[in-house]
Amino acid sequence: MIRLRHFQQQLELTHTFRLARGASDTRQSLVVELEHEGLVGLGEAAPIARYGQDCESAAAALESMVERLTQPSAYDTAANEVAVPGQPAAEAALDMALCDLAGKRLGAPLYEVMGIDARQTPVTSFTIGMDTPEVVAAKVEEAGEYKVLKVKMGSEEDREILEAVRAVTDRPLRVDANEGWTLEGALERLEWLVSMGVELVEQPLPADQLEEMRELRRVSPLPLFADESVHRAADIPQLAGAFDGINIKLMKCGGLAEARRMIAVARAHGMQVMLGCMVESSLAITAAAHLSPLVDHADLDGNLLITNDPFEGVTVQAGRLVLPDGSGLGVRPRAE
Amino acid sequence: MIRLRHFQQQLELTHTFRLARGASDTRQSLVVELEHEGLVGLGEAAPIARYGQDCESAAAALESMVERLTQPSAYDTAANEVAVPGQPAAEAALDMALCDLAGKRLGAPLYEVMGIDARQTPVTSFTIGMDTPEVVAAKVEEAGEYKVLKVKMGSEEDREILEAVRAVTDRPLRVDANEGWTLEGALERLEWLVSMGVELVEQPLPADQLEEMRELRRVSPLPLFADESVHRAADIPQLAGAFDGINIKLMKCGGLAEARRMIAVARAHGMQVMLGCMVESSLAITAAAHLSPLVDHADLDGNLLITNDPFEGVTVQAGRLVLPDGSGLGVRPRAE
Repeated sequence: MIRLRHFQQQLELTHTFRLARGASDTRQSLVVELEHEGLVGLGEAAPIARYGQDCESAAAALESMVERLTQPSAYDTAANEVAVPGQPAAEAALDMALCDLAGKRLGAPLYEVMGIDARQTPVTSFTIGMDTPEVVAAKVEEAGEYKVLKVKMGSEEDREILEAVRAVTDRPLRVDANEGWTLEGALERLEWLVSMGVELVEQPLPADQLEEMRELRRVSPLPLFADESVHRAADIPQLAGAFDGINIKLMKCGGLAEARRMIAVARAHGMQVMLGCMVESSLAITAAAHLSPLVDHADLDGNLLITNDPFEGVTVQAGRLVLPDGSGLGVRPRAE
Repeated sequence: MIRLRHFQQQLELTHTFRLARGASDTRQSLVVELEHEGLVGLGEAAPIARYGQDCESAAAALESMVERLTQPSAYDTAANEVAVPGQPAAEAALDMALCDLAGKRLGAPLYEVMGIDARQTPVTSFTIGMDTPEVVAAKVEEAGEYKVLKVKMGSEEDREILEAVRAVTDRPLRVDANEGWTLEGALERLEWLVSMGVELVEQPLPADQLEEMRELRRVSPLPLFADESVHRAADIPQLAGAFDGINIKLMKCGGLAEARRMIAVARAHGMQVMLGCMVESSLAITAAAHLSPLVDHADLDGNLLITNDPFEGVTVQAGRLVLPDGSGLGVRPRAE
């Protein structure tokens, strides 16, 4: 018998999130508790509105998936086998809960169950969202111990935002253009980005512009990473030659099992790997962090951008991710 | 402290192994015992002479690798990180021993540690080596419960051998040409192979003839699998379009961790996966069998071709692989 419980949690953003279409101060995510043989595995879905998901559709998908689950111990394939098309966040929550259950059943942290070396965790970048130059400068001040900053660009004020960041810090910067540039605009910016100390650029062009990406990559002095252009492992072969690396997010790909397969495929193509996230609590962020020793770059800061994180798990020490040593994900409700 | 012990074992072949260059009745493999924190992990190297390895070079490589091992629990990366170039059989033995240790430390079968569904094991084929038509017919009789036969071809007597097999059984056949055909010879044989009930062909052309393979595949009515053309995950992208599937062998790729990465890469390219072996005892065969629920076809019969198997682990019931439920690999010395 497998029992599923789920409930929505509202995550309060430290800073108002601004987009062309409007602004928001909160995010909803769905917490999942999967009970099996006296143990409870935890998972979290942070549905991506861009792809037509929300907490209601994720909850419905989870109920359907759990109903068809026959071998909860087979965490490498079980969530994938029962996945509901178009609901990767729900699939990720189930996958995560199965991983947590496996670790709790075996009495070991997930990284140990998976044979991953917890000493090899990378630093994580910290994201500076788009805002006025004054607010951006204030955000950089708050980013204290983080060794690398990620700057969201892709708007009219690109240059002002990056200059505002660079004016107050000499840390390495990564730029996420979020599909916001044209080929010409990207070509114009590249040398300037290098001169500003940027070390990589994420998704400069819209996801479907692969030919333009090949052209951009041929002349780019900076490594270019796919985000919106890549969801699952099968997307990767066609990206070789168009990108230098990929950004894997559990909520895009459907969980840790698929994320590991993506790492293998990217490596086989000589591509670098970044592990990213949505706005998520420490539950989903910790799950992703267990895989971070396998990647080149981590951008696991979704839990650092909220004020009411209900969970604790992975921590950041001197900028570097530190995995918890409890069984499974090692996540527990935050102590008051 | 990690302690390494190793010793050679001589495996006696049921049937003399015939090649153009001569014949042999035995194979040597190297058994590895890795002691760590009071537990002993077992591994086996079956070095491949074609690639310049033998038990002595494998033993030397193992000593060097174990000396540089710092995190034995990190079975997903540890053997690969200390691997000696050109010694994948030694790397596989170390990887296997680390997997065995992980399962014994966690008190669970390896398939459970890896989150693999043991109920999904495939049938294994049974290999009929090249010989006179009379001996081939006798071998087929011995192949009792196996549902699929693999016939070694690639010699002058190809047609006689396949006809001798087909004369005494109606089971599905797989053909392994071992690089033995030319493009013209392969093209000539394909329709005939279909009419003989062959379901797939392994490595029809020499490993380096990728362009000819593309040509062959365009017209082939049968799926074509790479064996000598593929060693590790990074070899796979260039094979897309030239082969329909790959044959993964632990002794070629360096162990279970790399084998899992290869499965992911092959799947991302829409390719099928077969899990094969060398002449090996039940130690290495059982290790490979733990991954068999992840693949389409198993050819794990190396332990069935010898008369003095020193170990027991995986079994075959009604043609299908059945995984042992002991901790780790679940392999133990064969009871008298």
